[in-house]
This record gives sequence, structure tokens and C-alpha cells, in this order.
Amino acid sequence: MSLNRRGISELPHMCLAHGIDHAIISPGSRNAPLTIAFASHSAMRCFSITDERSAAYYALGMAQQLKRPVVLICTSGTAMINYAPALAEAFYLRVPLMAISADRPAEWIDQNDGQTIRQRNLYQNFVKGSFECPVETAKQEDLWYFRRTISEAFTLCQEGKPGPVHINVPLREPLYEALPEATQLPMVVKATRVKPTLSSQQWQELRKKWHSLQKKLIIAGMEDDDGEADRYLNQILANNEALVVAENLANKSIHNSIESPDRFMAYLTDGQKIALQPDLLVTLGGPIVSKRLKKYLRKYKPKEHWHIGEHEPFIDTFQSLTRTIGIKAVDFLAQMTNQGVPDDTYVGIATQLYRQSSVSHQEFFNDIPFCDLAAYEMIFRHLPKNCNLHLANSTPVRYSQLFENQQGVRYFSNRGTSGIDGCVSTAAGAAMVSDRLNIALV
Amino acid sequence: MSLNRRGISELPHMCLAHGIDHAIISPGSRNAPLTIAFASHSAMRCFSITDERSAAYYALGMAQQLKRPVVLICTSGTAMINYAPALAEAFYLRVPLMAISADRPAEWIDQNDGQTIRQRNLYQNFVKGSFECPVETAKQEDLWYFRRTISEAFTLCQEGKPGPVHINVPLREPLYEALPEATQLPMVVKATRVKPTLSSQQWQELRKKWHSLQKKLIIAGMEDDDGEADRYLNQILANNEALVVAENLANKSIHNSIESPDRFMAYLTDGQKIALQPDLLVTLGGPIVSKRLKKYLRKYKPKEHWHIGEHEPFIDTFQSLTRTIGIKAVDFLAQMTNQGVPDDTYVGIATQLYRQSSVSHQEFFNDIPFCDLAAYEMIFRHLPKNCNLHLANSTPVRYSQLFENQQGVRYFSNRGTSGIDGCVSTAAGAAMVSDRLNIALV
Repeated sequence: MSLNRRGISELPHMCLAHGIDHAIISPGSRNAPLTIAFASHSAMRCFSITDERSAAYYALGMAQQLKRPVVLICTSGTAMINYAPALAEAFYLRVPLMAISADRPAEWIDQNDGQTIRQRNLYQNFVKGSFECPVETAKQEDLWYFRRTISEAFTLCQEGKPGPVHINVPLREPLYEALPEATQLPMVVKATRVKPTLSSQQWQELRKKWHSLQKKLIIAGMEDDDGEADRYLNQILANNEALVVAENLANKSIHNSIESPDRFMAYLTDGQKIALQPDLLVTLGGPIVSKRLKKYLRKYKPKEHWHIGEHEPFIDTFQSLTRTIGIKAVDFLAQMTNQGVPDDTYVGIATQLYRQSSVSHQEFFNDIPFCDLAAYEMIFRHLPKNCNLHLANSTPVRYSQLFENQQGVRYFSNRGTSGIDGCVSTAAGAAMVSDRLNIALV
Repeated sequence: MSLNRRGISELPHMCLAHGIDHAIISPGSRNAPLTIAFASHSAMRCFSITDERSAAYYALGMAQQLKRPVVLICTSGTAMINYAPALAEAFYLRVPLMAISADRPAEWIDQNDGQTIRQRNLYQNFVKGSFECPVETAKQEDLWYFRRTISEAFTLCQEGKPGPVHINVPLREPLYEALPEATQLPMVVKATRVKPTLSSQQWQELRKKWHSLQKKLIIAGMEDDDGEADRYLNQILANNEALVVAENLANKSIHNSIESPDRFMAYLTDGQKIALQPDLLVTLGGPIVSKRLKKYLRKYKPKEHWHIGEHEPFIDTFQSLTRTIGIKAVDFLAQMTNQGVPDDTYVGIATQLYRQSSVSHQEFFNDIPFCDLAAYEMIFRHLPKNCNLHLANSTPVRYSQLFENQQGVRYFSNRGTSGIDGCVSTAAGAAMVSDRLNIALV
């Protein structure tokens, strides 16, 4: 038994030390040392999924429910390329994944040996970081580097805005020999998580501006959070301080908010659209689905647009961004609640128009014959409470936007990159670790 | 006059909106539109330096004194490669620079036309970000992209840990035509600067750990800060809570701190080294110079090592890192002061030994004949107060470590990458914008 694999044998222990205990392993030879290390650790929950493309989407669904990273392990060559679609989705969806690819050692790359491609940095366009481990860890210097690399990768995966990280692990033959005894508590570097805050002077200036701008529109983007912002959004809307748009994927529960902006926009006349043009637009969290709302705001631009969210400085979906504020939405809303001038007219008119559009929508459904849309309407009317609803791209998620949010239902969809691939695997992965009923609408 | 250069004509206005008003321009044809835009703006302070390698070091020295970004403008081809050494230094020294390289338009790259190289991402290994502007900005979509790119680059340059950023600007001929009238107040995106903080529970845990570890050593690394941490370091050391090492480049004024650790380490016996092995090592800020201190701590490892500083998670200089805390040193020290158990023995012994080493050092100097080292000693004895002392690599900065810190002197050295190139240009750049006497020791 060689000491060359000291790092590999420690890897599952390091995962656990960083709070990661789920792994999906796809078969192969080159990754055998990794498979042995993970599968033989009783505290790691390992799953075997053969196809790497599906495996990565499974991991995405699992990590989204667990709200912590899931490890992916695959063999070398094109196998690892198949992780790419789900990693791209995870990058834009802000889901932490730890993709570990076994590799030939560096001396064998591009030497016409089988199953060798240039793996290093392969995912660089859509991961938070790419790392490579030393090929052997018998020497103390290599082990130090291996451990530090793993700690850094695991931290990067989870800190700030979560996302996928890639670790490339070159391995020399023989691949199937027993691993050295692992240190049960290997040295890990812990990062103390920091919270970004603003000074009271900064808050004062923002509140002053918030106060001075009359028509305010808040758009809550896609998010599966703990709902702590809901309280403030409810308060702000109840005060008539701002209009709130929250599509189903925002997973918010806000009384009187605009839940179907796409439907609403289709209902408005040009005159009404002008009347609803905001002075201040505040966007929270991820993207929205509604094409019509995007088009509307790009034409009827606000005077100011603030985007709120940690680690995402320059997202200008509506071509009107004036300020980025890198803090949590809930911290922003807590400071702004009860600070604006209530504008009953703006919020009132919008709310009334929205109600009218809902009535007209219902009338429309009463009249249509059975068709795909009618089937969706029926499904949405009969959704069980407290389920997770996974909406495939693109018709299911777009149709779903036509219906009011169902209480107790949590909505998911791969809208990071909106690919049609992997929707079922993502839902299946979610179901594997979730206590709720998971429904995939494809 | 074509509208294709709307973005270029706005660029100096955008600089000013982001608080940047110094630019160094090197001559060329391709960058003529940039030169015209900047040189014709009365509020921009433009300097002409022909050699790009020197120009970038000048900018480094200037930005270091101004504590805000300086713009660099050069022509296409190998000209821009010459910025690289100073940008690498700025990256590790955490100095904000905005390198703007003119470029041939993309359609002419690698077409055997003169002075075209692949400029995009050229500096990617040592800049915080690489950006490229649209080649023309007559269309609104291009102008939007141009403006957003500039705002994003300027923000990245200054936020968190400052550093260099690269903007590549492709330009089509003709190059010397008049620029379109600039919007005096172009749309800029401002980023609200956030401050990372810890929760009271996190502080409590850290203080508990701080309290429980007996022998504590704080190393203040290279920094040119506002001195607000000094108060707490003085207090901690006066309380005998921790030993403090602060080389001259840390620019600290701490009574009884170890200012010449390299000299001190040479003086210690093996037994004394063992006695001084810390339980907790806390490092603040940038690197240190002393080779002996590095070697000592890599051998006599602390039980725990915390590294404190924003945006620099995994720096493990002493191969013993256990925790990274991404906040400002002053915020950390404010919470730890008066929290430890005073250890008179540890701090007392070290302080006494250090005093003895100083005496023995002085005796040594009394005896040596005139030589290079004696000349340094004479210079350090006669340094004027309130000067900036720029120490070249490598003998001057190493020799300087043998002498106590001179009150009122601020120490600078290109120790980010420790190159011997550019030391004089950096000092000259500093002198151009500084009110103090600047002395370069080469």
C-alpha cells in the first residue's frame, strides 16, 4: 500500500469537515481511487448514476433541496465534459456543486494515450473556480497543497453567491490498490463567513433617495430562500410604498403582489403602461421569466434602478441600472420599510388593474375548449399543497406563469440557462433528498 | 465627425464620475482617440511618459500615494505587454490601476497586419478582470455595453481588495478625426461599498478561542493604511495579551513591538525559539520580508493560525493556516483587545530578548569598518522626519529590516513580486503626487 494516495483517502473526511455528505459517483477506472475512498466511508451518502450528464443534473436537484454542496465524481475524458450542461445551469442558478474529475497524470496528456483530453480549466466559463490536485501526496509538501486546495475549493463553492467548483484529480496507475489509512481529522482551513453591511450614513442616503422617488416598483426574482424577506415586502405593499412583482419562481407569499406579470402586461393599454412607469425600480435576487415585463421596462425605463444582492454587481436586465448594492434583500427591505411616501394612486391603480386582468383571465378559461392550456389550468387547480413543483423548459414554465401562485407550493425550474435538457433528472435528484412530494411538469 | 466614438469621448467623464482624475499616456497612433479624449479634458491630470514599462511603474507609485486608481493609456502591440511587470506588482501589492490598451479591431487580429497581437486577456494572470469595449458606439446598444463595461471595470478596480484591471479598446481607422461631443454626465453605475461583518455569536466564538490559547503572536504584514489599527495593537501589547511583530513596511507605530524580526531570529538560541513558539498566530495584511521569521514559523508551527483581511481567503505563508476571517484588521483587533489572558511571561521574555538583540546589534555596528552596511546604518540614522522612503529590491529592503523603524517615515517597496525592475520609476511616480519628501534607496 503506497502513501501516494494520502490526499485521496482524506478527501471524504474533508468533505464531512466542510459539511458535505452527499456524493454521486459515475463508473470508471481512472476514478477508482476516488470511488473506493467515498464508497467505503460510512458517513458519506453515495449514489451511483451511470450517465454523467444525468448525474450532474441529479446533483443539481439534490443540492438545491439540501442547500449545501453535493459532490460529483467521474472518470477522465469525455465523461467529464458531460457534467458541463448542469454545471452551467448551476452557475447561473447559484447552486453549489463540487465536480471532481479523475484525470490521467499531466505527463500523459496529448500523448495519444486513450481517454485523455485537456481537462484542466475545462469548465472555466461557468464555475466559480478550477483547481487541480497534486498527482501524488506521499510528500508532506504535496499533502499540504492537496489539503489547502480542497479547503479552498469547498469554501469557494459555498461562500457569498454559491455555485459550482471544479477539482481535477490526476491519478497514476495502479488504480485499484488499497488506500492508505486516512487521518480521521485532516487539517482543514475554515473560513469564517462574513456578512456585508452598510454604514448608517449609507443607509440614510439610500432612504432619502427612496423617500424622494415616488412610483416604486420592486421585482423579486427567482429564489428559493427562507422567506424572511416576505414580511417586509408584505408591509411595504400594505403601506402602498411600492408595487411588488413576484413570479411563482420567486417563491414569495406577498398579499396583493403581481404574480403573473406576463399576463398583466398583455392586458394593459399603452396609456396604462405609461401611468405605471416606475421612478425607482428595485430588483432582488435572480432573473424573471416574463418576456413582456422585460420588454416593458426596457421601453419605459425607471429614473433609477437599484439591484440588490450579494456578489452580483453588474446585472442590468432592463438597461437602466444606476446602483448595485451588494447586500441581502432582507437587509435592504428591513431598512426601507416604512420609509417611503405612500403612493395610494400608483399602487392602488396597479392593484386594481391587476385584479381586473385576473377576472378577464378567468373568463377566458371558462370559455376555451380542452387543449394543452386547459390541461395546465386543470393541473394548477388541483395541485396538492406542500409539494415541490419542477417546471421544465420552456412551455411548462411559461404556461405556469399564467396562474396565481398556489399556497404551500414551492416552484423550481432550471431558469439559470433555461436549457430543455436535464429537467427530469433535476426533479428526480430533488425527490431523492426531499421530504415533500416532488412533481415534475414536463 | 462620426458618432462611432461616443463611448471614447465619454470615457474621461466616466473616470471623473468614478473619482479618477490622473492618467499617464504613452505615445502612439492607435491610441490617438483616447489621447485626444483625455488630453482635451481640463479636469483630467494627464502625464506623458514614453516608455510603457516605466509609465506603469510611475502609475503604481502615484496610485499608491493617491489611494485611488490611476489610468494608463498605451497603443497596440508589444507596447501594452510592457505594462505587465508593473501590473503584476500592483496585483500583489493591492494597488488599483486601470490599464487601457488601444487595439486593432478584432477583424484584423492575426492577419499579418502590423502591430497586432492577441491583446484580449493578455494580463489575465495578474489583473482582477479583463474587459473589452465594443469597437464602435454609434448604436445605443453598443453605447450601453461600453458604459456598463467601464463602470464595471472601474468598480472592480477599487472594491474590496484593490488591484489592476485591464480594458482593451479596439479602434478602427481613421484615428485622428475629431471626437463627437461628449455627454457631460454619462450614465454610470455606482456600486454601494459594503463592509463585511461578523455576527455577535461568531465574535463570541472567536473571543473564546482567543482567550483559550495562551501564547499569541500577531504579525502585521506590509500595509500603508490609515494607522487606525495601531491603537488596538498598542493596547494588546501593553496588556501583554500578545506579542506583535511589525516590520518597517507594515508602517505601524507600536511601542515594544518586534520591528526587526530577521535580526531577532538570528539572535535566538534553539531553546529560546522553542519557548517563543506561539499557540495562536494571527496575521494581518500583506506579506513580510523576513526569511528567518518565515523559516522559524514553518518549523515551530502554531496550534492555530488565523489570517485576517478582506478578500484574501487562502494565504498560508507558514503552512499552518486553520481559519480565514475576511474582515478588516482593525475590526478584528477592536473585538479582541482586553479579551485575552495576559501572559506576562511570553510577551515579557520576548520583549526582553528583543531588547538584548538590539543592544548586541548596536555593539556590532560600533565595531565595523566603513562598508555598504555601515553606509546604510548612517543613512538610517540621518533620515529626515516625515519622508516617504522607497526601498529597492533586494539589498536595500533587506538591509533596511536591520534597523528600528524611524518615526514619521513611511516605508514603501515593491514587495508584491519583489522585482528589481521599476523601483526608481515607482518612487518617481510617488514623488509626482506626494507632498512629502520622497527618498529612493537603490
